[in-house]
Amino acid sequence: MQTKYILDEKDIPKKWYNILSEMPNKPHPPLHPGTIKPIGPEDLAPLFPMALIEQEVSLEKYIDIPEEVLNILTMWRPTPLYRAHRLEKAIGTKSKIYYKYEGTSPAGSHKPNTAVAQAYYNKKEGVKKLSTETGAGQWGSSLALAGSLFGLEVKVYMVKVSYEQKPYRRALMEAWGANVVPSPTTETQAGRSILEKDPNSQGSLGIAISEAVEVAAQNADTKYSLGSVLNHVLHHQTIIGEECIKQMQMTGDYPDVVIASAGGGSNFAGIAFPFLREKIAGKNIKIVAVEPTACPTLTKGEFSYDFGDTVGLTPLVKMYTLGHDFMPPGIHAGGLRYHGMAPIVSQLYHDSLIEALSLEQAKIFEGASIFAKNEGIIPAPESAHAVQGAIEEAKKADEEGKTKTILFNLSGHGHFDMSAYTQYFSGKLEDSTLSEIKLKESLSSLPVV
Amino acid sequence: MQTKYILDEKDIPKKWYNILSEMPNKPHPPLHPGTIKPIGPEDLAPLFPMALIEQEVSLEKYIDIPEEVLNILTMWRPTPLYRAHRLEKAIGTKSKIYYKYEGTSPAGSHKPNTAVAQAYYNKKEGVKKLSTETGAGQWGSSLALAGSLFGLEVKVYMVKVSYEQKPYRRALMEAWGANVVPSPTTETQAGRSILEKDPNSQGSLGIAISEAVEVAAQNADTKYSLGSVLNHVLHHQTIIGEECIKQMQMTGDYPDVVIASAGGGSNFAGIAFPFLREKIAGKNIKIVAVEPTACPTLTKGEFSYDFGDTVGLTPLVKMYTLGHDFMPPGIHAGGLRYHGMAPIVSQLYHDSLIEALSLEQAKIFEGASIFAKNEGIIPAPESAHAVQGAIEEAKKADEEGKTKTILFNLSGHGHFDMSAYTQYFSGKLEDSTLSEIKLKESLSSLPVV
Repeated sequence: MQTKYILDEKDIPKKWYNILSEMPNKPHPPLHPGTIKPIGPEDLAPLFPMALIEQEVSLEKYIDIPEEVLNILTMWRPTPLYRAHRLEKAIGTKSKIYYKYEGTSPAGSHKPNTAVAQAYYNKKEGVKKLSTETGAGQWGSSLALAGSLFGLEVKVYMVKVSYEQKPYRRALMEAWGANVVPSPTTETQAGRSILEKDPNSQGSLGIAISEAVEVAAQNADTKYSLGSVLNHVLHHQTIIGEECIKQMQMTGDYPDVVIASAGGGSNFAGIAFPFLREKIAGKNIKIVAVEPTACPTLTKGEFSYDFGDTVGLTPLVKMYTLGHDFMPPGIHAGGLRYHGMAPIVSQLYHDSLIEALSLEQAKIFEGASIFAKNEGIIPAPESAHAVQGAIEEAKKADEEGKTKTILFNLSGHGHFDMSAYTQYFSGKLEDSTLSEIKLKESLSSLPVV
Repeated sequence: MQTKYILDEKDIPKKWYNILSEMPNKPHPPLHPGTIKPIGPEDLAPLFPMALIEQEVSLEKYIDIPEEVLNILTMWRPTPLYRAHRLEKAIGTKSKIYYKYEGTSPAGSHKPNTAVAQAYYNKKEGVKKLSTETGAGQWGSSLALAGSLFGLEVKVYMVKVSYEQKPYRRALMEAWGANVVPSPTTETQAGRSILEKDPNSQGSLGIAISEAVEVAAQNADTKYSLGSVLNHVLHHQTIIGEECIKQMQMTGDYPDVVIASAGGGSNFAGIAFPFLREKIAGKNIKIVAVEPTACPTLTKGEFSYDFGDTVGLTPLVKMYTLGHDFMPPGIHAGGLRYHGMAPIVSQLYHDSLIEALSLEQAKIFEGASIFAKNEGIIPAPESAHAVQGAIEEAKKADEEGKTKTILFNLSGHGHFDMSAYTQYFSGKLEDSTLSEIKLKESLSSLPVV
């Protein structure tokens, strides 16, 4: 009874898939926040190296992965695909559940797939320093790792509440040599303006982005690095789904349903886009993005132009958004607390090529616990959304008397999130109820374009 | 430039190696603590299932690994062997450094290799519950994982100071369904006797062993499980070295030096014993056990009969020991704070088949930091002893104008030890100096046999 499917290292994908090339409707163009006109490469040049700007707008179907990037990715790739025999038995389903496990990277999630690529292109173009933001710390630690491997300085603006609550994530970044500061800081104009209004601000991802972008825009040797949302970031993650397609062939099965959690959209894109290519070509696959009820970007947001950050420094992008000053409840899935969704993912959802589902925090820890006891791996709270999504899909199939093949992306482990599990086991998991009034307020602040 | 060497799953070793079969001098027999006479299988029967007792005394060269055990081990095995190109470059050595990485198991170390086997044999003989002790938590979490996979209850006596300092390790065990209590407890006679003498006792591994053994001895449905020291535990770990031998063949190199950290001796045995088989057969290999200067069992202990626990419930075994009431400084490498050393490893050291080296705590974090920045993986403090041992061996070779092939065992990751890294980075790492007076005292308490 085989449970693990591993590709040979020589079969690691050599190209990223660019779904932009095949989307029936392309995402709307990003707009300059000042002129409200479509931005060009020159507008992005202060923030990103040219190679990444080219990838951002490319319409080529495939993009070659540089050998130097592959060399580092093979430190932990190809990653395993598992058949969840024990989980299936535990929940009593007749469906088959497979999961791709991305927690084998040193940073513990899928994020290094793009961090390594971004560090590589920046290094190649002579950049000395990268600035970025991080919430729960998955992204910050991944960029810290990549920076240390390419000899780049990394400055991380970490959302203050996480900085204080997650000292070990911070320690991880510091172990890889990054400079981590609690955001908002007094170092940037963005930070100072927030602190003037609220000296006790606990920070947010939107604020931290504002700070990291400002620093990159103002320093010639510094570029900005983003862990999700942007097109090139999503492309870089498709190595996950490309591996999965080959691994599913090894199993002899083919997924009826592909499931991933969605915050900014990168791990979802990673597993889903290569299967979407097959769906566009005629395969019958249901593809589901799972988000928290506390931050229901796809299921309750509006498809509208909005800023990527809180202060309004980034281009306006057309996406599903809860409003750029939306402040979600303090759920443990910090990586899913972003107000927006990647423009590509948003357009695909708008065009009904993918579906969305939102789940309560207590429910996802219930699923994570069943998973951990049976499959051994402790899911990150973010990834637990995909776990529970798969469990619910399997149960629904049982009720309908169907047998489905379900594939989900276990995007990372929860080794740095055990306090969340402790709270769950002690019955003290905080309420993740979304305030409908607050949501209405933040949606009403959407810029009129 | 290849950095990772992975065996095909079909090449996973199917047998454990039993070095007892080939040792020039066998370890001295364990003695009954009451009669001071060699113990027989019947003395061990209350504590262990018969299959493990047979393995404990077996002189067969190889022991078949049951298929059910292999099925679970292949959830994360075979584990990778890496060539540390980046580390070599960072320290400027001409030697080649390889490392075997055992942190890919869900519990994050080599410990599940034996936990799974022990849970399997207990389950097969109808045992319902396992009791054990844990210090830093690596072993407790591994047995919790194995128990959850085989449907066995697991009770963990966790050294109180660790229970309080490491809530996330505890949460990990609880996530796998184990019942974890701070030792000493009032549940056992052993615990009560310690608390009578010192109500504020912070516990020790020796005390926790006393409690776990007592509970197993008094309950028919409960057996005891130990994560190191015993012969069968060491056998189970040889899968590490057996894989390494095949992987080194893939590299085209052969190790001049094999290095591992040593607490009770299990990860050391795991990588070293299969190479010792080749050394006994004529190969020229230097094999080094690295221990902390704070708990220098091999380098400063005596080769003497002693108890495995503090209270004196276990058989007397001939081993290198610092005395069963030795209380080491509170270093972060909790897994290396045991007063004794496995009888097999002790005998091999006594017979000069292996060497030993002790390293200061600050030094091992220096090595761990260089390693993390260059190889990506954050070593567990225990494993960091092997890292620094390898760095020193490489530097020595450079000084001597030699080029060596060095192989070490990176037995686990440090995701649950980041507070130690934080202390190191902030320059606040506590002193790990051993009190010579205390050592002398505890050595003077060795039982006269």
